[in-house]
This record gives sequence, C-alpha cells and structure tokens, in this order.
Amino acid sequence: MTTTPDVLISEVGPRDGLQSISPIMATADKQRWVAALAGCGIREIEVGSFVPAKILPQLADTAEVVAFANTLPDLEVAVLVPNLRGAQNALAAGVDKMTVPLSVSETHSLRNVRRTHAQMFDEVRGIRAAIDALPEGERPHLEGSLSTVFGCTLEGAIPEAQILTIAETLMACGCDEVGLSDTTGYADPAAVRRLVAAVRGVVGEAALTGIHLHNTRGLGLANALAAFETGLTTFDASMGGIGGCPFAPGASGNIVTEDLVFMFEAMGVSTGIDLDALLGVREILREALPDEPLYGFTPDAGLPLGFHDLRRSA
Amino acid sequence: MTTTPDVLISEVGPRDGLQSISPIMATADKQRWVAALAGCGIREIEVGSFVPAKILPQLADTAEVVAFANTLPDLEVAVLVPNLRGAQNALAAGVDKMTVPLSVSETHSLRNVRRTHAQMFDEVRGIRAAIDALPEGERPHLEGSLSTVFGCTLEGAIPEAQILTIAETLMACGCDEVGLSDTTGYADPAAVRRLVAAVRGVVGEAALTGIHLHNTRGLGLANALAAFETGLTTFDASMGGIGGCPFAPGASGNIVTEDLVFMFEAMGVSTGIDLDALLGVREILREALPDEPLYGFTPDAGLPLGFHDLRRSA
Repeated sequence: MTTTPDVLISEVGPRDGLQSISPIMATADKQRWVAALAGCGIREIEVGSFVPAKILPQLADTAEVVAFANTLPDLEVAVLVPNLRGAQNALAAGVDKMTVPLSVSETHSLRNVRRTHAQMFDEVRGIRAAIDALPEGERPHLEGSLSTVFGCTLEGAIPEAQILTIAETLMACGCDEVGLSDTTGYADPAAVRRLVAAVRGVVGEAALTGIHLHNTRGLGLANALAAFETGLTTFDASMGGIGGCPFAPGASGNIVTEDLVFMFEAMGVSTGIDLDALLGVREILREALPDEPLYGFTPDAGLPLGFHDLRRSA
Repeated sequence: MTTTPDVLISEVGPRDGLQSISPIMATADKQRWVAALAGCGIREIEVGSFVPAKILPQLADTAEVVAFANTLPDLEVAVLVPNLRGAQNALAAGVDKMTVPLSVSETHSLRNVRRTHAQMFDEVRGIRAAIDALPEGERPHLEGSLSTVFGCTLEGAIPEAQILTIAETLMACGCDEVGLSDTTGYADPAAVRRLVAAVRGVVGEAALTGIHLHNTRGLGLANALAAFETGLTTFDASMGGIGGCPFAPGASGNIVTEDLVFMFEAMGVSTGIDLDALLGVREILREALPDEPLYGFTPDAGLPLGFHDLRRSA
C-alpha cells in the first residue's frame, strides 16, 4: 500500500485497557502484543501512561514498553501523561506523542488527577517548555484531551462555554491539538457533531482531529460514524474492548478496535489495517490475560461471506 | 404529547425475538408484555407471525395475541406472513399491517420459505387480492420486506440490479411499500445509504420508509443512524435484543430497542416512548423468559446523569 489510509485507528488497549483491569500483563506480553498490533497495520499505539507505579502498577513498565515500541517501524508511540513529572519521564523514554487528559468537569479532574483546572494549565505550560527544550526534530506531539466532555458522572452536563474556554486555554498553554474524550459514555451522534463544531470554532479545524469514544451505552460506533462525518480522522479504540475509566463509576468499555475497523473497511474507508490479522492478534491478548473477557461483535460473528471480494472490487 | 414523534420504533420482539428462541412464551405473558410495551408509548408492535404451528410453535397463538393487541388504544398491530395462507389468517384475525418477507437471495428464500422469487410474487399478488376484497376502511397496510438485502450467508453479496427488480416487482404485485432487512447483519452505514437511494430510485421515496437492522457485527446503531439520515423513519428493534434469523446460520441479534430509543432521544429525535418506563418493561420479559439472556448497553449502564433535564430543555 502506498496511499495514506483515510483514518488513523489509535490502539489504546495497552494503556486504557490494561489500566482498568486488575491483572498486570507481563512486559514481554505487552511487547509481543504491541508488535503484533503494529504488524497488522496499526500505526499509532498508546503503549502506556507515565503515572506513579503505586497508582497504576499495571503500567509501571511503560518506559520499557516505549523503548521496545520505538524499535518497530512506522509506529507512532503514544503515551498518556497526567502532569509535568510524567511528561519528563515520557520525554526521557522518547515518545512520539503525549496526551494530557484534562477533565472539563473540575470535580472529575480533582478525583482523577487531584488537580484543579488552573493547576492542570500550569502542568501543560510546563510540559510545553520541557518539549521546547528539546532539539526541533525530537519534539513529540502534544495533545490535550478534553475528558468528560460529553458529560460527567459526577457533575452531569458541562456547560459548553466552559468546555470552549478550556480548549482555547489548552492551546494557549502550548498543546499542538485538543481531542474529545467521552470518558463516561455519555456521547450521542448529535452531541458529537455539536461539540466538534463548537470546539473547532475556537481552536480551528487543524487542531481537532481525534476522538476517544466509549461504548458504555452501545452508541460507540454510531458516535464514531458521526465523528468521521464531521471530518475527524483519528479514533481511539481498544482491542477486545478492554478498559474504561476506573475513576468514573459506572463508565466502562472502550470501542472495540476490531468492530471499528470492520465498520470503516466495510464502508470503504481505509484504515491501513489487515482485519484478518487483527482478529488473529486477539489470541495473544487471550493468552496474556486468560481471565479477562474479550468483547467484540465482529470477532464473534466473523466477517461476512464475500467480504474480501467486496473490498477488492471497491 | 400532541406532536407526532420524529421516528417510529416498531417493536418486533414478540415476533422476531420469540421465534428464534426455544422456550414458548405463554399467551398471557405475551399479552402482558405487548400491553406494557404499548403503555410506554410504542406505537407499532409486530405481535406474531402466521406460520404453521409445527414450524414455529412459539408463535402458534398469534391470532389470540392479535385479538388482544387490537383492544389496546393507538397501537398498530403488525404481523409477519410468509404466504397467502398466512395472510388470510392475518386478515381473519384483523391486523393493521402485514409484512411479507422476500429474500432477495433466492437460495435463502428457498431455505427460509421454500419458495422461488416467482412463487413469492404470486403469493403477494394473492395477498393483494385478498386485501382488496375487504371494505376500504378495513384493509391492512402491506409491506414487502427485502430480506438479506445487504448480503446473504449463503450467496454473499446480492447484485443491486436483482434487488431493484425485486423491489419494483413487489410494488407491481401490490405492496404498499417495501422495507430493507439486514437479515444477516452484513449492513454498514455506506451500504445503507447506497441501497436506500437505489431502492428509492425505483419505488419512490414514499414507498420506502422502514428498515430492519441486526446488530450481529456491532454496527446496528451506526446503521440506524445512517438510515435516519437518509430520511427513513421506521426502525424495527427488539427488546433485550432477543431474536434473529434462525434460518441464516451465524446471524443473530436484533437491535436492542432500549439502546435505539436512547440514541434517538439523546440526539433530540423524539420517539414518543417513555425510556424509563421501557427499561422497566424488561422485568416482564425477564419473568416470562427467565433463562434467556437479555442484552442492551443502556439498561446495564443506566441513563446519563442529568439526561432527563437535558431532554426537558431540548
């Protein structure tokens, strides 16, 4: 393949999936999984999070996983960093992309990262300065992720004006872009369209390309479809649907990567991912996490008869 | 409420759901369930199917359920009829709507109702004549449902020209409208848009308003969203997602009514259905079918915090 795929599926299972389950996946298994994911055409993987090991022991080996992932060709190695300290560790490890989550619900922000909005903006400014201290070619991309942007399990709906101020401020603090994150599974297709338009209104079209959706109420793929139609091109998803937000009670369930890839490929929207190979990678996950349920409709049902012929003739 | 809702959710659980599970629901339970569904604002229910009791013993009491449903106010009482014989029984029972499924895959048609396309057209002509023999005010609506229209587990993709010829012929044989049915769970949002446009091209916009989608590969709600955006207004769904097509191996899983209603209501698209009451009706189904799994993401996760306030201010 020489053309750029239409959408970028960012696999967040190794971070968002693993952080919300109790078993700790062995580093070697993570590396095997990440390599297999990259091998079937996934071009961006959030491989971990730089948070204190006592908070998320599941991700304590993130630096090692980053180092391994950096040896894989054509892979954007992404991590989540909750603060400047995490970002410094990420920079030391050498990542391609850092995502700082900022919950637009201040109650959730305090619960999740124990920081007010003002404190989070300070962190982001510090992260920007740390990035800019690097030589130009070595600076990772910095995304500010607007968590609970579709509503919060603690505060309910967040006023749009508050969201827009935060988005604008994140960009002013030095983010390269902002993303929308349906931490709580409250999004619906109309809300996706409304918020994408509103946030673009303050940050510009180029600074909002990605969305992180959950399937908590079954609307994950419908929301992804709506987001795609607004022109967003980066979609977070988690193999087997593992993961969620352990700090938002009742909210769980990332979009299943396999189902998302199936939807796009069936529509003729190229992902660059070999879907058969991707379905095979589930075995690695199953072996590494034998007691965790793996979700996904497409893996259970299999691909439609003639699916590959249809794709070839498309 | 005095305004007409934006969409019509047609509950097919009592037919499509019950036909594909082995337990036989007691007639009294069916009546209680149908009454409760109608009570929370569902305006159309497919209450059964007029097929020989030895083929589908689960639906042998359809005439009784129809008689009961006819006593409920403001309810369109719909049934499925595979042939003229079934339609005659439906007319004798007194229904508001009859759906004749015609599988655009002839292999599936033979497997499902043991009839070729030509034989099915003859049946539909006979049904039209039987309807027209009734006085004008008593004639039920006749829909020809294009089954396996998004692909067949036996034949794979069905050529569009074949689909369009069948749609046109069904109208010529006397159907009031045609519907699209994703019997096998092969649909995707792009295919939905493509087929709606193509079929409308031959039957006209007014003669295609409804779609029957499955969630076999997790795309059910995304497909419903795409269908809604083309202007379709009638959506089949099944409470608890029970049901599917027992004659299409590997294909199962109607869209969950509760999730579909949640999606539309969250979007501000009115269904006329009281979602809280609808979620409560699951208890009736659970009591009547204690050993059947009930699906649905929204029932598991609950409604978002502040959902009702949002709806009120919309």
